Amino acid sequence: MIAEIICVGDELVLGEVLNTNAQFLAKELLSLGINSQKHTIVKDKINDIKYAINKASKTSNIIILTGGLGPTDDDITMQAVASAFDVDLTINNDALNNIEKFFQARNIQMPISNKKQALIPQGATILKNPVGTAPGIIWKFKQNKFILAFPGVPYEMTEMWIQSAKDYLKNISSKNIKIKNLKHFGIPEAKIGEKIKDLMEEDNPQVAPYVDNGTIRIRINAQDESKEKAESLLKNTEKEILKRTGRYFYGYDNDTLESVISVLLKKNNLTVSIAESCTGGLISSKLTDVSGSSKYIKLNLVTYSNEAKINMINVSEQTLIAHGAVSQDTAKEMAKGIQKLSGCDIGLGITGIAGPTGGTPEKPVGLVYIGICDNKKLNVHKVQLNSKLPRFKIKTLACDYALNYLRIFLLNEFSINKKTSIIEA
Amino acid sequence: MIAEIICVGDELVLGEVLNTNAQFLAKELLSLGINSQKHTIVKDKINDIKYAINKASKTSNIIILTGGLGPTDDDITMQAVASAFDVDLTINNDALNNIEKFFQARNIQMPISNKKQALIPQGATILKNPVGTAPGIIWKFKQNKFILAFPGVPYEMTEMWIQSAKDYLKNISSKNIKIKNLKHFGIPEAKIGEKIKDLMEEDNPQVAPYVDNGTIRIRINAQDESKEKAESLLKNTEKEILKRTGRYFYGYDNDTLESVISVLLKKNNLTVSIAESCTGGLISSKLTDVSGSSKYIKLNLVTYSNEAKINMINVSEQTLIAHGAVSQDTAKEMAKGIQKLSGCDIGLGITGIAGPTGGTPEKPVGLVYIGICDNKKLNVHKVQLNSKLPRFKIKTLACDYALNYLRIFLLNEFSINKKTSIIEA
Repeated sequence: MIAEIICVGDELVLGEVLNTNAQFLAKELLSLGINSQKHTIVKDKINDIKYAINKASKTSNIIILTGGLGPTDDDITMQAVASAFDVDLTINNDALNNIEKFFQARNIQMPISNKKQALIPQGATILKNPVGTAPGIIWKFKQNKFILAFPGVPYEMTEMWIQSAKDYLKNISSKNIKIKNLKHFGIPEAKIGEKIKDLMEEDNPQVAPYVDNGTIRIRINAQDESKEKAESLLKNTEKEILKRTGRYFYGYDNDTLESVISVLLKKNNLTVSIAESCTGGLISSKLTDVSGSSKYIKLNLVTYSNEAKINMINVSEQTLIAHGAVSQDTAKEMAKGIQKLSGCDIGLGITGIAGPTGGTPEKPVGLVYIGICDNKKLNVHKVQLNSKLPRFKIKTLACDYALNYLRIFLLNEFSINKKTSIIEA
Repeated sequence: MIAEIICVGDELVLGEVLNTNAQFLAKELLSLGINSQKHTIVKDKINDIKYAINKASKTSNIIILTGGLGPTDDDITMQAVASAFDVDLTINNDALNNIEKFFQARNIQMPISNKKQALIPQGATILKNPVGTAPGIIWKFKQNKFILAFPGVPYEMTEMWIQSAKDYLKNISSKNIKIKNLKHFGIPEAKIGEKIKDLMEEDNPQVAPYVDNGTIRIRINAQDESKEKAESLLKNTEKEILKRTGRYFYGYDNDTLESVISVLLKKNNLTVSIAESCTGGLISSKLTDVSGSSKYIKLNLVTYSNEAKINMINVSEQTLIAHGAVSQDTAKEMAKGIQKLSGCDIGLGITGIAGPTGGTPEKPVGLVYIGICDNKKLNVHKVQLNSKLPRFKIKTLACDYALNYLRIFLLNEFSINKKTSIIEA
């Protein structure tokens, strides 16, 4: 089953409203084993809508429309559907009843314009709207061909999807699609591409890498008539990829660097403390995005000035004079200093040049040092980010590098079953 | 001039990634007086991309493509463009140089697959990518017909748009559209709606409110053949709105609460220091997103544990026992404590329940206290956010409330020309 999503609305085409409906529907369809092949976003113009419907009806089994079901004159999706399939619009009494009830419940006289919302293409069935006045439709307009129309208001659309459309479509679809994302950090996209080139050429499972900031996400999409077969296809490809990407891999689907770190810290009963300069509190904020992080986060510092570095976490003035605030030694002393001050098991210090000003030929914008220590070890890492990135991007990437080095530190230094701990994360 | 936006990528069509590019581009085009008539989102399939380009070239003057310019085998947008217009792909030496330089600057051997990114359709000009390896193209393929291709990575696309494409297209467009956004915080959308109802009914300028998290943005869109007329139309409506919204207004277009605060702090030669609990470093991170913030940020703390609150910033154990960590008194003592420790002019303390667990009937998730002080004053504010919001949303909103109270504190306490200081921000 192949689907096409058509979203109607000037506000979408002109960019006034972000189109979250298309993403929601595509995801939901995929979870039913229905692949979308295209989204088309058109204005409130009858010919544009009609043309998109006619085109889609030739190559897709399922056409999903959103928007243009309101009571005003520019709401013309039903007209477009009727015209595309050359049928009349007729008053649907169920729909009219529902609309009347909607207003009665609010003690409001139904505006005449709302009566229009009960007009649906002859042959179609209404999809009740539990939260608004605009009913949708569902219509098998041909053997194995379906069209559904929803209001454009995201809340109404999703309610109608969940309450009625989803189950209807579930019964139509036969294929099983299994999708998994393998997230990696610290490796360029092209290098990942080289490692998995042969897998990317396969048809099933489909394997494709995507870049989300510093993270390279490899998506595996396996399909089969049998659910078990789809799962085993996916599992085999996953194993093969993980064998090739090793420690670059950090987690699945909704895992984040900070959620993986959370699992590692809790498993080993460790606490961590951060002293930030260039990232300005972002690492601390990311770590506390995880619910339950108060178990391992006690005290973090943003030591932005030299004085704060000296007075709070004991960075030596000597080091700052000899090597500068952005240096290997400063990062190390920050890590040690915050570990001591907080009494935590692990300390992390980060210093760098977030830009856009403050760079020199020797220390360009994007230069970052990350120190990480526990009672036994003290590592320092140098990262040179692209100097031309905007400030917040450098902060974000520096933060992700620091989190990734912290993850690797935890894997290296603590005697746990490394493989398992990531995979369970 | 009529535009069509074509976004390429399986991840968009399957709903894995929200399509923010199309909205950005449609908005930007509109600001140049160029109306979009359609968006088409297609998979990484050469025939689908080619078909969309051919269709668009018949009805639009400007075709904008995003995505599919990466180094991997499924990146085929350039091939599709070449094929649609029946030209060859040739190596562009400028592009190749830029890609080589990109890797040289990072001391990394260029992967062979990246060479592919220098292949562009014969006749096209490259759009330099200042932040990544994939160049774009701009190509007048016929009289009054243009095609532009950008990478799909949003920040690469936006940088390239801002640095080169926008000016190019500005010269093509003829209509004068002036757009301005007035940003407000701390007032519900419906209340803003009541205040500007009459203005929203006008055709030119068009006035419409949008909600971006806690910020209510009122967009004014004025059009005229004459640039001066468009500007004066806009100016008059802006004045009228500002008269009605007062202190809720904090800035224009790209202003943020933190950028406005930056202006206020620098003007008054003040420093500020933050002690965070529930926001976990987010306020500190936001404040340091502003370039030059080291002028007024010296030391911030994330005192997540009670011990950190007691030991570092002198919150009394008594207060914590009697009122709890999430209380008016704790917020006040945190503000005072961090002000003293840092030696800064202003102290801000924030404590609350970010959820999803940890709430009680008396202190539900979303309860936040914000203390702000200088040497003369100590204020505390209570905010109850929607308990059902996800954790990161509560953190974000709590942070924005704190920043907004800090902004108001600065306006109230420091004898500056208040009106001017915001408007210049």
